[in-house]
Amino acid sequence: MIPLLAPNPADVSAMFHSFSDILEAVRVIAPANPNTRDRVLAEWDSRTKPPGSLGKLEEIAAWVASVQDSPDAPRASRMSLRLFGGAHGITAEGVSAVPDSVNQQMMLNFRQGGAAINSLCRSNGIDFQSYDAGIDHPTRNFLHEPAMSESETVEAFALGWGSVPQFTDVFAVGEMGIGNTTPSVAILSAITGVPSDSIIGRGTGLTDDALARKSLTIRQALANRSSEFTSPLSILASIGGREIAAMTGAILRATSMRIPVVLDGLIAGAAAAIAFGIQPASRSCCLAGHRSAEPAHDSFLRHFGLDPLLDLRMRLGEGSGAAVAMGIVRNAVDTFHQMATFEQAGVVI
Amino acid sequence: MIPLLAPNPADVSAMFHSFSDILEAVRVIAPANPNTRDRVLAEWDSRTKPPGSLGKLEEIAAWVASVQDSPDAPRASRMSLRLFGGAHGITAEGVSAVPDSVNQQMMLNFRQGGAAINSLCRSNGIDFQSYDAGIDHPTRNFLHEPAMSESETVEAFALGWGSVPQFTDVFAVGEMGIGNTTPSVAILSAITGVPSDSIIGRGTGLTDDALARKSLTIRQALANRSSEFTSPLSILASIGGREIAAMTGAILRATSMRIPVVLDGLIAGAAAAIAFGIQPASRSCCLAGHRSAEPAHDSFLRHFGLDPLLDLRMRLGEGSGAAVAMGIVRNAVDTFHQMATFEQAGVVI
Repeated sequence: MIPLLAPNPADVSAMFHSFSDILEAVRVIAPANPNTRDRVLAEWDSRTKPPGSLGKLEEIAAWVASVQDSPDAPRASRMSLRLFGGAHGITAEGVSAVPDSVNQQMMLNFRQGGAAINSLCRSNGIDFQSYDAGIDHPTRNFLHEPAMSESETVEAFALGWGSVPQFTDVFAVGEMGIGNTTPSVAILSAITGVPSDSIIGRGTGLTDDALARKSLTIRQALANRSSEFTSPLSILASIGGREIAAMTGAILRATSMRIPVVLDGLIAGAAAAIAFGIQPASRSCCLAGHRSAEPAHDSFLRHFGLDPLLDLRMRLGEGSGAAVAMGIVRNAVDTFHQMATFEQAGVVI
Repeated sequence: MIPLLAPNPADVSAMFHSFSDILEAVRVIAPANPNTRDRVLAEWDSRTKPPGSLGKLEEIAAWVASVQDSPDAPRASRMSLRLFGGAHGITAEGVSAVPDSVNQQMMLNFRQGGAAINSLCRSNGIDFQSYDAGIDHPTRNFLHEPAMSESETVEAFALGWGSVPQFTDVFAVGEMGIGNTTPSVAILSAITGVPSDSIIGRGTGLTDDALARKSLTIRQALANRSSEFTSPLSILASIGGREIAAMTGAILRATSMRIPVVLDGLIAGAAAAIAFGIQPASRSCCLAGHRSAEPAHDSFLRHFGLDPLLDLRMRLGEGSGAAVAMGIVRNAVDTFHQMATFEQAGVVI
């Protein structure tokens, strides 16, 4: 597969120097167009099937069209997924079951095509690329100090913003970052107000003791950092990490280009929660691809009123749940275009 | 796509003359092999991901292998779906919202490639063929008399049995038959003991009045026919219809060939319930592709302890839910084979 083109990274970096540059850039984002949605739902009823009988497949095609909002929408031929890797100083607190060294090893695995996300993208015809958002530069430990400065946050955001290829119909983000369920739970707790203790999970496979440590670490870190939580971007900087900031940038860039975004699980949810906070119009341009087995993801879905397409008890990250969901998005759009109408088929009900 | 080969229909018809021929033919069916399942689940743990983190994808690949039960299993390259059309005398009671003439029109639509199932099979690389199981010969009205004779039932069963292509890795069945939610609810009620009134649904879109008529019709028909319910095959003959008998034959033939079967919704569930009654070993060779929006399907799933892969509020039939699920089955098997192991990727946890 020929990789889809993304803009020159230098051009994108030159766009963003501060949070106010980000707030300025996302002003163009418009919500999905409900009229286009209604037009596609009505067109479905001309197809040779009982009205509404394809269930969510009909709604998905209508949603894709409502984001793209062009006369030839919905389109789902060209799909792409961008993965960002980051490292987290908070792992010094023993919040992860596996060592930080796995980050570098997995980034190599992505480049060599041996990870789950590589296979799922191949299986579903999704263009895949991975980006190092700072694997060798862990964010600072947010139990003790802000994870990232404003300029570090903006730099990571710009990496994501610049990763979205032109000429893509449907987009998704994935990530790699040992320990990153911890900042994700913290971000979601800070944004939704749900106590972190009630939504933490075992990530890659924590023991009971380590889970208790993770719970205490997040609670203390949120108390220590809360005075810095003055805006969605300040929450992102305060908690981290770089891959989450890059995902936020990618989600907002895609929605600014009217490209529908299929969300993955917990970490993508944390990035999306920041994106929705920065620009609420982006919410209607995102579909929840699946329900993650990580409990905090459920609080994200409920807070933003998102109904996940799949529930396969997946909890891998990398964008894996989104990649599986994108296969169904393509099914829906293909079927919308290929089905005969009652008139074409001579079916009289 | 080159159609996969099926046996000569004349050879298959010569095999089956009575119910006892069917009972003899299904004796070879063996349950899925739990050791093969465990072998694949253990192999998943060597792949570069946290154990179990691909959730149901891991279980699906293990299930496919457990049915195929060969050293190179799981395989999911070649998938096929066979659709059967039938007509039902019970529509004289006003149990369907659309006329019987739609049967012929839709069979033409399937041959011309314009129906939802054609598109979903193309989108997921599934070999598709449709079979006329008696569109111009409606089964008798089972409110008043048995729907089919033994020889009619056996003939339809043989059509399905002969439809399963050699060299297929994963198989599914679909159907077309105006009014066929009515015999399906009746079959499931007869087999599970759940009162039909509690599980009927609106099918293609019944009004409240028509729904009440459907409810009464099924209740009376079950009372009239119950003395004939002496075996799963006698229930099938008594209630109908030909496409359901063909689906039962196809499911049992596939399982006899150790081909995993992905089940569609309500009508496929009625056919599978008969198949499981005839040969309980076939149960472990079938996966519930989705949860249909038709209420009776839920009673099928619960009775046989099946956990549906998808819940997309689909209620179209044709095998549409199975076709979407087959895309995920391929994702699972592809990923099992393509992922690097920890050793191959140099990932040390």
